[in-house]
Amino acid sequence: MDIHSLTFASRFDGISGSAIREIFKLLAVPGMISFAGGNPAASALPDIQMAEIAKELLLDKGKILLQYGATEGYAPLRESLVPYLKNRFSFDCKADEILPVTGSTQAMDLLCKALINPGDKVVVENPTFLGNMQCIKLYQAQLVPVDSDEDGIKVDELEEVFKKERPKMLYVIPTFQNPTGRTLSLARRKKIAELASQYGVIIAEDDPYRDLRYAGDELPSIKSFDTEGWVAFMGSFSKVISPGLRVGFLCANPTLLRKCTIGKQSSDVHTANLNQAIVDAYLRRNLLMPHVNEICKNYAEQLNTMLGLLAKCGGVARYTRPQGGLFIFAELQEGMDSVKLLNKAVEKGVAYVPGTYFYAQGGHENTFRLNFSMSTIDEIERGMGILNEVFSEAIG
Amino acid sequence: MDIHSLTFASRFDGISGSAIREIFKLLAVPGMISFAGGNPAASALPDIQMAEIAKELLLDKGKILLQYGATEGYAPLRESLVPYLKNRFSFDCKADEILPVTGSTQAMDLLCKALINPGDKVVVENPTFLGNMQCIKLYQAQLVPVDSDEDGIKVDELEEVFKKERPKMLYVIPTFQNPTGRTLSLARRKKIAELASQYGVIIAEDDPYRDLRYAGDELPSIKSFDTEGWVAFMGSFSKVISPGLRVGFLCANPTLLRKCTIGKQSSDVHTANLNQAIVDAYLRRNLLMPHVNEICKNYAEQLNTMLGLLAKCGGVARYTRPQGGLFIFAELQEGMDSVKLLNKAVEKGVAYVPGTYFYAQGGHENTFRLNFSMSTIDEIERGMGILNEVFSEAIG
Repeated sequence: MDIHSLTFASRFDGISGSAIREIFKLLAVPGMISFAGGNPAASALPDIQMAEIAKELLLDKGKILLQYGATEGYAPLRESLVPYLKNRFSFDCKADEILPVTGSTQAMDLLCKALINPGDKVVVENPTFLGNMQCIKLYQAQLVPVDSDEDGIKVDELEEVFKKERPKMLYVIPTFQNPTGRTLSLARRKKIAELASQYGVIIAEDDPYRDLRYAGDELPSIKSFDTEGWVAFMGSFSKVISPGLRVGFLCANPTLLRKCTIGKQSSDVHTANLNQAIVDAYLRRNLLMPHVNEICKNYAEQLNTMLGLLAKCGGVARYTRPQGGLFIFAELQEGMDSVKLLNKAVEKGVAYVPGTYFYAQGGHENTFRLNFSMSTIDEIERGMGILNEVFSEAIG
Repeated sequence: MDIHSLTFASRFDGISGSAIREIFKLLAVPGMISFAGGNPAASALPDIQMAEIAKELLLDKGKILLQYGATEGYAPLRESLVPYLKNRFSFDCKADEILPVTGSTQAMDLLCKALINPGDKVVVENPTFLGNMQCIKLYQAQLVPVDSDEDGIKVDELEEVFKKERPKMLYVIPTFQNPTGRTLSLARRKKIAELASQYGVIIAEDDPYRDLRYAGDELPSIKSFDTEGWVAFMGSFSKVISPGLRVGFLCANPTLLRKCTIGKQSSDVHTANLNQAIVDAYLRRNLLMPHVNEICKNYAEQLNTMLGLLAKCGGVARYTRPQGGLFIFAELQEGMDSVKLLNKAVEKGVAYVPGTYFYAQGGHENTFRLNFSMSTIDEIERGMGILNEVFSEAIG
């Protein structure tokens, strides 16, 4: 029988892979100035330090690290995450309420695996991270977008949706959101925790950018206001140590976490031990925050340079002014199309991501996302110069 | 709302986690002789060598390895797998037909994700690896068991099932099967490849034990007889380098592999780069086979010792005589119950896995699985002595 007669699972209907995949390939084009990715700067990856740590860990505990580990995670890491979560995210959590995962992407996958039946509704910010929208779609849930403003997702609209649509879950990035860079206000964080237990909706709180703060004051997590266990917290070390290591974690109430753990058994058995032990070493030896403080200095300068140039960029109607994270979200004048203009920008050597891909229902073709972490000050200046040309030309 | 009102996805109906989880916890009891696990021996884990390799790789290519990687995998590893697959598994495969995954467990998960709709039928050997049975169940497929004999799964019955049940997939472990240790004969390998394209059934060929051969001649993979792309091949480095690293791979026809790759995007984005690079180094520097040859010497002795003692073990009616791998499967006299006898064995300090858990529909309570890789010759002698006592006592 011809292999082309093979049919695939219906969860793939309408799924074609990440829409911005092709754009990401541009990162590899020599000389391309990329404002498109969401990668840490090369200088933010502690390669030399980690070479020593990896060697030391393998010599010290290699027989444990190279053997099968528990699906529940590497015990020392679960323990060292407890004070980290208390100090950085303001919530109390026992070691056995934490599941180390293979990047926080897996946390989202496991939450969906545990909770979502086809046709269930999942509320997302409009716009939001498209990788996790794809994850939700693969579980055949219906995405219900709720708009956000300068203070993050609009909680009045959210309550209406909770009431009317009875969703299973809300997916929210409270701090330096992807793609907007916006931070959810304190009042809204409290309100979301309240709404969660009022309406019985799981909150999937995704907070990978929090440590990358360049201005303003820290806010407690939504999870810190959770009294009954409706908030599941997803964290990641991808933005502050290394995405290539694939280590994140999920904190959730024990019943939900147990389902996620069973789900993980048949996803990948456990997260690689060496990788968990490396992250554990960064936490235990207090190497994380000094490293973060170092990289934040550069990122702050890159962000401010880009914001300054956006203010003078032709065609740009408005843009967010993030206090941290990796992204700025901007809007061109009404009627301009960032998807079409991307081709011209790329021809001249600059890439960005059109904003339309971050909206659950598309549209908003005049928006676009800029990343500043992967470009030097000089590249930001040259790149923004090119965008100014391209956009100015488009308005004629 | 009380968190206990939370309902879970229906895929978890009837799923309670690995049945042998509790037994595996016995591995950690001090002094327990465990014939229960499927772990490599501690001496088979190349910790010191890998400490140097990890350090060197991070110093050399740390900026690449610690950055995000492609979902498609670390390009050097995909390339070095091509000659490895040719030499060891006798099939030709291009680098872009290979997807490195986070342990071959993930390969199974991705195949199910790509192919299985609830209610689809998946044929499994009876008995088979229960981890992957759980994976298949979580995709709400119906397991269709087909019995095996000394030459592996019975292909006549298999053809009947293909004809009558129109399954989507066959899951098969052709070499030193888990739990039986049996190897699928050459004729049956050819026949299964034929049946696959005749009936349009995907063969998920899982071959993690092949390199652990202590006697007899190697056989080509089922995949090597695949002319049209119906065979998906899953490989692993867990049994020969390290399970804790979580590196395996999937080879499949490009259309199927593309779906699996899209599925992997939202599973864990990509397999950790450092871990892929370590495996690549073992292949590229020709470190793998000398290491394998070294560990096979010990395993052969352990296997033969255990087989010798099984011949004299009270209550044992028959047992398999594997030429490699990690397991022996044995049958007690009719009417004896290995589940009940396990408690007595554990009290006296020995653990094994009752065979019933490996059968899709249970039953076969007189069977049990023995692992020999994690025990010294002395432990095997003492442990088999205890089993002899326990079983002899049971027959009175």
